[in-house]
Amino acid sequence: MIERIRKKRDGGALTTEEIADWIRGVSDGTIPDYQSAALLMAITIRGMTREETLALTESMLRSGRVLDWSRLGRPTVDKHSTGGVGDKISLALAPWVAACGAAVPMIAGRGLGHTGGTLDKLEAIPGFRVRLTTEEFAAQLARVGVVIAGQTEELVPADRELYALRDVTATVESIPLITASILSKKFASGTSGVIFDVKCGGGAFMSTREEARALARELVAVAKELRHQARAVLTDMDQPLGVAIGNANETAEAFAALRGEAPPDVMELTRALATRMLLMAGIARERFEAEARVDRSLESGEALRKAESMVQAQHGDPRAVSDPSRLPRAKVETPVLAPRSGFVARIDARALGVLLIAMKAGRSRKEDAVDPAVGIRLLAKRGAEVREGEALAVIEAHRDAPDWADAVKRAYTIGEAAPAPVPLVLEEITA
Amino acid sequence: MIERIRKKRDGGALTTEEIADWIRGVSDGTIPDYQSAALLMAITIRGMTREETLALTESMLRSGRVLDWSRLGRPTVDKHSTGGVGDKISLALAPWVAACGAAVPMIAGRGLGHTGGTLDKLEAIPGFRVRLTTEEFAAQLARVGVVIAGQTEELVPADRELYALRDVTATVESIPLITASILSKKFASGTSGVIFDVKCGGGAFMSTREEARALARELVAVAKELRHQARAVLTDMDQPLGVAIGNANETAEAFAALRGEAPPDVMELTRALATRMLLMAGIARERFEAEARVDRSLESGEALRKAESMVQAQHGDPRAVSDPSRLPRAKVETPVLAPRSGFVARIDARALGVLLIAMKAGRSRKEDAVDPAVGIRLLAKRGAEVREGEALAVIEAHRDAPDWADAVKRAYTIGEAAPAPVPLVLEEITA
Repeated sequence: MIERIRKKRDGGALTTEEIADWIRGVSDGTIPDYQSAALLMAITIRGMTREETLALTESMLRSGRVLDWSRLGRPTVDKHSTGGVGDKISLALAPWVAACGAAVPMIAGRGLGHTGGTLDKLEAIPGFRVRLTTEEFAAQLARVGVVIAGQTEELVPADRELYALRDVTATVESIPLITASILSKKFASGTSGVIFDVKCGGGAFMSTREEARALARELVAVAKELRHQARAVLTDMDQPLGVAIGNANETAEAFAALRGEAPPDVMELTRALATRMLLMAGIARERFEAEARVDRSLESGEALRKAESMVQAQHGDPRAVSDPSRLPRAKVETPVLAPRSGFVARIDARALGVLLIAMKAGRSRKEDAVDPAVGIRLLAKRGAEVREGEALAVIEAHRDAPDWADAVKRAYTIGEAAPAPVPLVLEEITA
Repeated sequence: MIERIRKKRDGGALTTEEIADWIRGVSDGTIPDYQSAALLMAITIRGMTREETLALTESMLRSGRVLDWSRLGRPTVDKHSTGGVGDKISLALAPWVAACGAAVPMIAGRGLGHTGGTLDKLEAIPGFRVRLTTEEFAAQLARVGVVIAGQTEELVPADRELYALRDVTATVESIPLITASILSKKFASGTSGVIFDVKCGGGAFMSTREEARALARELVAVAKELRHQARAVLTDMDQPLGVAIGNANETAEAFAALRGEAPPDVMELTRALATRMLLMAGIARERFEAEARVDRSLESGEALRKAESMVQAQHGDPRAVSDPSRLPRAKVETPVLAPRSGFVARIDARALGVLLIAMKAGRSRKEDAVDPAVGIRLLAKRGAEVREGEALAVIEAHRDAPDWADAVKRAYTIGEAAPAPVPLVLEEITA
């Protein structure tokens, strides 16, 4: 192990066998954390070749059980987002795509740092279970066509070990390590193809276009080497996605998309990703055909009913899909007033993500509990014209919250002129 | 801690307070090994500024007890070698310098890897104790003027922790980490000044002149910032030092120097270092004066008697100093025959160091025991003219050892012409 660490320290490339030995040692506990920590740091600074990243992904994938849906009778497809503020897309997207005929075996995560997590949002639904056994996961996928659940003990145990270690050793921000972690989890869940939504901007982990593009390219290339279908979209995360940020309020907004009633950016991104997933799954051959299928399942109510079936299968209250009053909601509203007239030039998504932690809508440590009821409604998004004294946003909390309202006000930049519009989908990476 | 690791990972400089906090956490066990391992790797790759190395040295020094000899009535001076093959100089040098009037409070180490250790060589003397309490150390220094012992529990506990961690995380080869480790130990032992013998060549940790010079400069500069006297010599370690390599045989060769009977390179280096130590201690003002004092204590037998006093004080058999037959010695000799006639062009010191491990004269793991009786005598050194079939070296072992003789033969390169002579002292670093 010391020789392997030295090799990477000096900028060399590890062999497939050296990487496999390391991951075996991580999984069976024979390699101590301090050696893995030193190697992780050397990898973070020195990087990895494509071949190394591929070997790491494969070794991690094989550290646990790999699900197989080849006899399901339906194509499988999944989506992964690299995380941002207000990103509730999965909750609507997964049942919507399932309603169109694909199977979506989605393993999701919890929020950490300034970004939210799909599992926390789903748990805002009374009774909803995110911890399923592999057997429950498989049975629901076969019967309903869609599951969104947490990683089970059996899937990619090496990633759980390494992720916990990376989190406390400043080795999270490494493209090869991120790539291997994402891909091993996605492909352990058995999906044939995956669309990566790589977030880019102040509210994302990758703040520059170059970093986001580099990660997207690595994800797509390594996924293809593993003989999976893959493509990526780079999407804007310079402002939060949608109007609602928090947990229950995001769940409500996501389900509103299934009634065609979500804010325009949520509708646009959910549709864009659904279209690409149907094409990938082979359910449609042409873009216009995929778009028509997506629209039809919205209009017919199939997408909404699929979401209800999913919620019911996971022991949640299915009425919450159509009736947001079934979701918890903090009652005390504090408006955030515009300090001057003008146009919203910028909304600091990261600052709002950090504020959500203070409000207990996010967590600063893994073991923290999340309050599903609190959140923020952003009434004015980037480009909106506002007048002094008008409400920019509303805090939803259990008490009057002028301090939090001040923090939201500071996250807004009001300018003289309307900012240039930024497209939501910035770029597509197909290879 | 995560923020500090991230800062160094990205090439930033840590503040004195950040470094002090880390070392406090290492000493009191509140910072887990995996975080220190990640930081050590980031330091190894990114380096440290002079200010950071100084702060690290001071924090480590203060992690334990710091001895003080200001009321000893004699100047204190010490030597540190960065380690090589056949380097037995300390055993003769320390008592020799003490015989000239300086006090030498030497903390020495054990062999690890391909290099030997002073403590292992001293332990070849029947009864010799290298583990002393701080009180025993102080009492002997006051009474005899020289002690060579292992690091006590009280001195630089942070270095013990970090050194053990560096050893298993491929973070040994870092100039700032080496500098802080050496200086904190040397100055915790209370010496006013120190001469660094920085070994350079195939048998040393620093194989190139540039690396050795960089380390020497850092050692001298940081020592001076800490208001200690310091200078360094770069010395050749492309071939082993002396004729004997092993443990008991090296001890015998070192003591032979005190009778003027050691091989020329051992005599030359011991004298060169002793002269510089007397000048540093202020016992002589001019080089010729120091050289005369060194020679006088050799001729008068004072140096030899001082070594006997030191051995006796540490419970060893003092007769071993003049009578090598008191030392253990493996009886079975296997000659290594020259495969062709010519000149010895090169002796691979590292290969011989590695062979000594196989012979159990060195250790591959810290907990291994060392056999003091086995070793190798190098009859022909670099530049010697040899004839085919003549003995180049002799293996001293407990059995016939044709396999080891073959390994020694492979370490020799015999050339057509005499190689250009290499001076023993390559360079002096005074600032």
